[in-house]
Amino acid sequence: MDARNTPEIIIHGIAASPGIAHGQILLHIQSDLELPEYQISPEQRAEEMERFDRALVATRQQIQQIRNEVEKNLGTDEARIFDAHLLVLEDVALIGETEREFETSSKNIEWCFNNVVQRYIKAFSEIDDEYLGERAGDIRDVAQRVLQNLLGRAQQTLNNFPGNRVVVANDVSPSDAVGMDRDKVLAIVTDSGSRTSHAVIVARTMRVPAVVATRDLTKRIVEGDSVLVDGYEGTVIINPSDKTLYRYGKIQVTRKSVEQRMLDAVSLPSVTQDGVEVILRANIEGINSAELDMARRYSAQGVGLYRTEFLYMQESRMPSEEEQYRAYKAVVENMAGEIVTIRTLDLGGDKLMNGKSGLFPMEANPFLGMRAIRFCLEHKEIFKNQLRAILRASAHGRVLLMYPMISGTGELDDANKLLDECRAELREKGVAFDEKMPVGTMIEVPSAATTADILAPKADFFSIGTNDLIQYLLAIDRSNERIAHLYKPAHPSVLRMLSYVVEQAHKAKIKVSVCGEMAGDPLYVPLLLGIGVDELSMASSLIPAVKYLVRAMKMSDAKKLVHEASKMDNAAKITALCNAFYNARMAEA
Amino acid sequence: MDARNTPEIIIHGIAASPGIAHGQILLHIQSDLELPEYQISPEQRAEEMERFDRALVATRQQIQQIRNEVEKNLGTDEARIFDAHLLVLEDVALIGETEREFETSSKNIEWCFNNVVQRYIKAFSEIDDEYLGERAGDIRDVAQRVLQNLLGRAQQTLNNFPGNRVVVANDVSPSDAVGMDRDKVLAIVTDSGSRTSHAVIVARTMRVPAVVATRDLTKRIVEGDSVLVDGYEGTVIINPSDKTLYRYGKIQVTRKSVEQRMLDAVSLPSVTQDGVEVILRANIEGINSAELDMARRYSAQGVGLYRTEFLYMQESRMPSEEEQYRAYKAVVENMAGEIVTIRTLDLGGDKLMNGKSGLFPMEANPFLGMRAIRFCLEHKEIFKNQLRAILRASAHGRVLLMYPMISGTGELDDANKLLDECRAELREKGVAFDEKMPVGTMIEVPSAATTADILAPKADFFSIGTNDLIQYLLAIDRSNERIAHLYKPAHPSVLRMLSYVVEQAHKAKIKVSVCGEMAGDPLYVPLLLGIGVDELSMASSLIPAVKYLVRAMKMSDAKKLVHEASKMDNAAKITALCNAFYNARMAEA
Repeated sequence: MDARNTPEIIIHGIAASPGIAHGQILLHIQSDLELPEYQISPEQRAEEMERFDRALVATRQQIQQIRNEVEKNLGTDEARIFDAHLLVLEDVALIGETEREFETSSKNIEWCFNNVVQRYIKAFSEIDDEYLGERAGDIRDVAQRVLQNLLGRAQQTLNNFPGNRVVVANDVSPSDAVGMDRDKVLAIVTDSGSRTSHAVIVARTMRVPAVVATRDLTKRIVEGDSVLVDGYEGTVIINPSDKTLYRYGKIQVTRKSVEQRMLDAVSLPSVTQDGVEVILRANIEGINSAELDMARRYSAQGVGLYRTEFLYMQESRMPSEEEQYRAYKAVVENMAGEIVTIRTLDLGGDKLMNGKSGLFPMEANPFLGMRAIRFCLEHKEIFKNQLRAILRASAHGRVLLMYPMISGTGELDDANKLLDECRAELREKGVAFDEKMPVGTMIEVPSAATTADILAPKADFFSIGTNDLIQYLLAIDRSNERIAHLYKPAHPSVLRMLSYVVEQAHKAKIKVSVCGEMAGDPLYVPLLLGIGVDELSMASSLIPAVKYLVRAMKMSDAKKLVHEASKMDNAAKITALCNAFYNARMAEA
Repeated sequence: MDARNTPEIIIHGIAASPGIAHGQILLHIQSDLELPEYQISPEQRAEEMERFDRALVATRQQIQQIRNEVEKNLGTDEARIFDAHLLVLEDVALIGETEREFETSSKNIEWCFNNVVQRYIKAFSEIDDEYLGERAGDIRDVAQRVLQNLLGRAQQTLNNFPGNRVVVANDVSPSDAVGMDRDKVLAIVTDSGSRTSHAVIVARTMRVPAVVATRDLTKRIVEGDSVLVDGYEGTVIINPSDKTLYRYGKIQVTRKSVEQRMLDAVSLPSVTQDGVEVILRANIEGINSAELDMARRYSAQGVGLYRTEFLYMQESRMPSEEEQYRAYKAVVENMAGEIVTIRTLDLGGDKLMNGKSGLFPMEANPFLGMRAIRFCLEHKEIFKNQLRAILRASAHGRVLLMYPMISGTGELDDANKLLDECRAELREKGVAFDEKMPVGTMIEVPSAATTADILAPKADFFSIGTNDLIQYLLAIDRSNERIAHLYKPAHPSVLRMLSYVVEQAHKAKIKVSVCGEMAGDPLYVPLLLGIGVDELSMASSLIPAVKYLVRAMKMSDAKKLVHEASKMDNAAKITALCNAFYNARMAEA
């Protein structure tokens, strides 16, 4: 509050973790450690190597600890970046070269290690590749931690600061996060980053607001400046005026009360004002029982999307049929009679397997590459192992199976043929399974959407994966920061595709679910329902907001919304209609 | 003919360069050079470094020579791989590290260079990335050449062989190609490779048949075996029987006579049997006058696609408006009154600029990334420079302009706004341009195809880029060998999309051209014409075959073909219809 006479500066970044915070800035600019350089005598060599080993072990334990914490709070997906960090510690070349450097130079091990690391980072950075750039970041982060452990030093900064602070940094690494004095962090703002960067995961784990991609903000402020962070809208206001603080105070109160009302409504029926029931299911992955607990706590009507990649990504070998069966059965039994929709393997794209790179050579365009059903039909035994495991799990509850990335009838027929083989094999062995297990097709490739009439008679249900469908329709990789703003769920083309798929499905008397992010976004839910989508499946944490909206709206209004939207010629106009619809419902509720 | 008693072995690879050849095998397995290792005395050091410099210069000249030869024979696109090779020679890190290695070790320079090169190759290969794998291949190839120059040795093999031979190799590098005794090579067959690999480019430059991707063929044969190569179908027959040789002899005669008749028909009108005129235009790139000569020789009715990336890719700086103007004007004047359809910059994707990597950071999925119009709308000054250059060129002939990768009205409006600004700027300066220059939209993003009705009133014409459109519709990167077989131009979804776009364009009274590879493929031409496509644009070399077919078919039959095809539920059935149609017309002709 000491800068009240300075004019406000408003900066727009990316909203990364929800919430509003106000406080003084703690400026955090990452800098390099100062490293000593000295000779090691021949008799001390063994001890020096031991010191290196101890530092590696300590680093491993620290990373493992963060990993577990993140997994507990945010799930398996977010924890994965730390697997990459653990892999750096296992990098034979990196460790081996350090040892060689040590043998030739007889210099202290931190000096040798740092030399090798810098060479690696330089090599990776020069290659000018996004992936390898990230890899360089991983190496830098892990190396910093190893060096700190070697030097017996604590984290450089971000701990032990006076009072509550908004951390403003050029970047926040996972290692920074561990050293961070969490009780005193009000919010996190970083110059770099996207919605999926480390800083965001840290902020969401800590449940503090965050804004990223503020460009040169760190250069425009000084430590101690007063700042307001709006993690809902992605706004950062330096030296906010009293008027601004008052306005945001009100926004915060309203947001909080709405959030509470949403949680209260979670156990009430999912029915629109005009009496139409809307089925809301959970997307889950892994066998984490916490995930299933949350699904039940938020009254999910079963699982609309069970991702099965986790079993393949956590080990460096293929899971056996038996292991998969046990995992699937555990989920099916846990859901006690509710539907569990199991999606067959969607490996490839950005989901690769540790240590199984032979099966997944790097591709120039992995999203347009060997992934999902394409991979499964090339590796029939891997696929059949999974199909048998799913069939066997179907004996224990209400299992539905669906294939990802189907592009036309050829793949669907081929997959079903293998499924029939599996059924025959199980029958022959007298193993129980649900003979009537429904088998659905995901609609996420444009060629499938545009030929939904041909696919519908061959499927027991459709599940639209809007993330991929939109990505391909618009030719936009939404994880690419530079063009993510061109990824538009409200593009007229998307609306038409979805309408066509639903129309053709209903003509063939099968149901349509949506399991992409649109299904969990209250802005687009009315559009999906108005189009006639039968079921929505989303991360459990999103169910309260969606159910609250469903209970606040009329299906007849949603149909009118779609009618209006279908006359619009661009995404901006459709988004505006959706916004108006949403705001009106929330104001009434 | 010495193996007449051995049974024939038929092997299927990828047809890479057309033609049929029969002869004895020359087996070519690449192996490493043997390198000497010795100390250099202090007084010889300067001389040793000079020897290195001379070898680098010689290598540069050799590569430059191959590059020019390939450019002359095959065009700018194919010559580009050698630019990558030239870049290796300019790699500061590689050269610098060699010098450092030399300073520390005082070993002979080829030993130092090889050490550094092997480290690089190892590092790149370990990364397990397709791009970097190719980069490793480039380094290996260039290094081999530098070492040969250092050792004063000629190419290892592929020259000086007795009589005519079919070269069967694990791989053929561009350096191999130079050393190759071209007059004696009957055909080229390689274990590895795709339709775009070095071996293919070499074979097509030499105009000899080639089959690639024959897997372990080199291990199944011995030097001197008799082999028949069918570069039309991608078949290799080891120890062909008399019957086989006779059959292929007949095929070859038929092919040759058809090819001759096609060339004869090139100056005749492009009119179907039932009197419908079909406009055939040329795709060109660069300012190579040979390309324009060929377009005229094959009676192309102007240019349907003029790619403008060449100016941006050959220099390491942006071309000025003036340079572009001169280049475009030269083409427009050369085409003397015929239409020249200029496509604005389609950089990004797989087309990057030398030394301008800052503008094009590597992307995880470049085909779904910052490319074409997206790039231009982000870099408005670069774009406006081009727009002004095109407008100015329009004063000298019949210029049409079209935007690539339009996904919806937003981008089209934004681009047209910039074009209007350019028009106003030129008017103010009194610079001449065609006020009525037609401005078209490429339809290659599925969201544009599915909203063709919205885009059509805003465009003077449509040009469908089938390569990208199919790629996105099917979510298949067709340059990815592992899934290229799933890229299906005859997918029902493609047929529907094309029909919809043509229907909506004609409703808005604008014309539709197709400039993707489908337009130059006689198999699919009847489909496109039956759908109602107004113009086809293709590489000039494909015009004779397409015109021959056009003159042999009836438009009414093409319409019947489309009617039949639209009832089919998969690509295989539609392809079968197209095949039957094509074969019937060719048998009649």
